[in-house]
Formats: sequence, structure tokens, C-alpha cells
Amino acid sequence: MFGIAIVSVAIGAWHAAAVPGPRRIVRVDTRTGARAGDRDSLAEEAPLEIRARGQVVATVLRTPGHDLELVRGLVHAEGVAPGARPALVQTGGDVVDVDVPATDFAPRALAATAACGLCGRAAIDDLARHAAVVASDLAVPAATIAALPELLAAAQPVFRITGGLHAAALFDEHGALVAAREDVGRHNALDKLIGWALDDGRLPLSRSLLLMSGRLGYELAHKAVMAGAPVIAAVSAPSTLAIDVCERFRVTACGFVRDGRFNVYSHAWRIA
Amino acid sequence: MFGIAIVSVAIGAWHAAAVPGPRRIVRVDTRTGARAGDRDSLAEEAPLEIRARGQVVATVLRTPGHDLELVRGLVHAEGVAPGARPALVQTGGDVVDVDVPATDFAPRALAATAACGLCGRAAIDDLARHAAVVASDLAVPAATIAALPELLAAAQPVFRITGGLHAAALFDEHGALVAAREDVGRHNALDKLIGWALDDGRLPLSRSLLLMSGRLGYELAHKAVMAGAPVIAAVSAPSTLAIDVCERFRVTACGFVRDGRFNVYSHAWRIA
Repeated sequence: MFGIAIVSVAIGAWHAAAVPGPRRIVRVDTRTGARAGDRDSLAEEAPLEIRARGQVVATVLRTPGHDLELVRGLVHAEGVAPGARPALVQTGGDVVDVDVPATDFAPRALAATAACGLCGRAAIDDLARHAAVVASDLAVPAATIAALPELLAAAQPVFRITGGLHAAALFDEHGALVAAREDVGRHNALDKLIGWALDDGRLPLSRSLLLMSGRLGYELAHKAVMAGAPVIAAVSAPSTLAIDVCERFRVTACGFVRDGRFNVYSHAWRIA
Repeated sequence: MFGIAIVSVAIGAWHAAAVPGPRRIVRVDTRTGARAGDRDSLAEEAPLEIRARGQVVATVLRTPGHDLELVRGLVHAEGVAPGARPALVQTGGDVVDVDVPATDFAPRALAATAACGLCGRAAIDDLARHAAVVASDLAVPAATIAALPELLAAAQPVFRITGGLHAAALFDEHGALVAAREDVGRHNALDKLIGWALDDGRLPLSRSLLLMSGRLGYELAHKAVMAGAPVIAAVSAPSTLAIDVCERFRVTACGFVRDGRFNVYSHAWRIA
């Protein structure tokens, strides 16, 4: 009993992902002291549920658009129904059904991609059952945020050798480096860092700042919330869903922290 | 009956991930026509199996090192045994056992992180059961490879707006752009692209070139092999495991394709 099939249009060339409406941000420039409200478009991130004849087999976080192609490619890469091309039907905006038995999907063969750590869950509402709003009233000078990337870079030896590792770093409220970890996976780097902090009796991280060397996606925001961190900063861009999480759980998210400037995407009141 | 516990050393500050021994590469500079053998260190990537009292519950691809912290952080982020701190034991170089019942892990709650698409599998040997060596004898001029990123950038509209999307692109053997897809997840972008190509009857991609806007990790190499692509190029760094896959399945891997230069990490004979 499927809904209307949305047929993938395969005409090649470039297909741009949809750009969601701009969000309200605060642009901070510590070189000039400027601080101004603005709007900025974020990369869209949303869960896509994959079902096999109605049974949920995986959830991936993706940028909406070309969903049937995404599932087609994933099914192929995972070796599900090799040699066949099972029918795919988009039964809702965020659900694609594959016409194979659920047993054709190996356990965990389909994992989250941008989504790691979310799989099989309904993102934010589910997180709310595990985590509380971050209560910390920490306030941080803008100059402290702006200085974080250089402090991390100065301490990141392997990245400079291989160019291939992500880093996650923990700073105290004054911007002093406490610990850092690196990994090919940005989620791993943050898990290592928070795992260390947990073993060291430092959770919740109410008076700490987190910095990521790359982008800020949903599950990094999820991990920050679970650790009770009031501020997460990233050298690169955040996604829509990451900012939705930060907004709801009262985490201050800073992105594009570079060259003395950055954008604040949620709870800008913490940036003094 | 666990082996020797490797206790996590929690002394804070910076802990560098191990840098594996350098690999043999070929450096190509199309501006000068130079082509020289060299050695380069790659970011290490290897599967870590997570077990709950002996039962495998997840496999993640990570950079070895701080494995107990990684599992500690992951278990915390996933809300497994909330409020408790279950004992962790490293029972082998790439196995960590968590002292909780396997049922405490929600289905797919622990997903691959850097590893997406691999979960629960034994990487390369498993791939060999699904995929053949790429037979294509395609040869590509170095200048064709060097030109790919600019052709992609010229056609990538959303990235320029949000700064937050990865892109995957398919080119013909002469370097003409055939199709491109973008997503918050690099794996999704490649799945969308290969899904399109499959629907369009283009697999195997024996006479095509793949380009990724970011790094080249294991599962991108896996997807390239499954699609029969002879060449995968990336703007950024490859991992050890990605190159192991490309070497074994006869895929030419190019990394750091920038400013007219790039490195070839496997099967350099295809670069004319």
C-alpha cells in the first residue's frame, strides 16, 4: 500500500540540492569589534528512512533531493539484490521503500552516513528522551572563540603530516586547551574526546568549549548535548539539523571560525 | 574470558594518533611535467569491532589509538547504560568489549562513523565476495585529472552558497563532466551519483573518472569498486584503508588534486 511514486529524473549533468531558506545568524568580527545580525543559508540535513517492503532497515541523514538515486546507489554498494534492480518507491517526503525482503539487508549493512549515531531513531525528539537542555549560563568573549582554531592547529601534529585527520578539542572557559583527539572520522574524534573527559570525571562539560576542525553536522551537535557542553565551535559550516538541535537544547553553535571572524547560529547571548 | 585490558591513559592535552609508515606514491605536477616517485604518510583507518559481553554490536572505522575512549564516548552518546560506566576491555588490537547486555544497544544505534556502509563486515575480504577487480585498461592524461576540480567547482552552485556540502562527480575519459551530486554526507553524494548512473544503464563505469570534493576514505573506495570505476580522484587526502582497497581492486587513486598537481597512490600506470 504505497503512496505516490516520485520517479527519479535521470538527465545527468548537475543537479543542485535544494537550498532551504536562510537562517538568522550573528556575524562577529573580532578584528573590528563588529557584531551584526544577518541571514545565512545552511546545508540542509534531514533523516531519510529506508524500508524493505514496509519494514524499516536503515535511517540515513542526507540532504533532501535525489532520494531514489541515493537509495539505488546505497543498495548497489551494499550488494543487496545483486544483479537485480528492485523497485524503489518514495512513500513520503522522507521514506523510500525497496521491494526486497528485509532479510536481504545484512544487519547494520546500511548505516548512517552523514548520520552516524542516529540510525534508526527519530532525530531530535528521540534525543530529548536521553538528554536535558544545557543549563550552563557560561558567557564567553568573542575573542576567546576566535582564538580556538589557532590553538588547535598549533597542537595538531598528525594533521600537518597526513592532511587526512579530523580533530576535536576541549578548551576551558578561558580558551586554554585541555585535550584534543584526532581521527579519520570527525565523530570518532569527538567520541574519543568526550570519552576521555567522562573517564576523567569532567562531565557535564558546563564550563567548557568544544571545537571541531571541520563541519558541524547533526550527530556532533547530538554528542555535545549528551556531554552537556554549552558551546560548540567549528572551523567550517553547520547543517540545518545541527542548528535545530543546538537551538532546542540551548547550545551556542559557532561556525566558520576563521581569521578572527565567526558566525553564531544559536544562543548568541553566550558570546560576550 | 577477556584478554589483557589496555587501560586508557587519561592525562589530557594532546594525544597524536599514530602515523603509520609512509607509502610509495607518485607525485605529478602538470605545470612542470614532473612525475616522481616519493613516499607519503597517510591517515590510518582500520575497523574496530565493538562487542557487548562477547556479541558483536557494531564495527566502526577509526584511526587506531584511544580506542577505549572512543567506545566510552560512543556508548555515552548513544545513551547505552545511562548513568553507569560499564567496564571496557580491549580484547585485541581491534576489538573492545563493553560489559553490558547486547540488548542495551538499540538496533543500529551504533553505526559506522568514518565507516558508513561497512558496518558489521570484515572490510576488504568481504568486499571481495561482492566485487571483482576493476578490469578497465583506461589510460588518462595527467592534465585531465588535474583539470577535474575546477570543472566541478564551476558546476557546484550550492556549495558556494552554504559552504556545507560535499560533492561527487562523474566525468568521461576525456574529462567532460557527465553528472554531479551533492550532500552533507560525502557517501550520500557518491551513492546518489552511482545510483543515477545505474538507473541510466552506465554501470560498470569502465571508461569514467570519479571525483570527490573532500577526503577519500574506505567506503568511497568500496563504492567505486562496486561501480567498476577505474579512477577515483579526491581534492583532499586518502586513508590507508582506502588505498589498500584501490590497490587490491585495481583502482587508480589520486589525492590532493589541486593547482595542477596531484599524488597517485595506486595503479599509477593508468596516468599517462
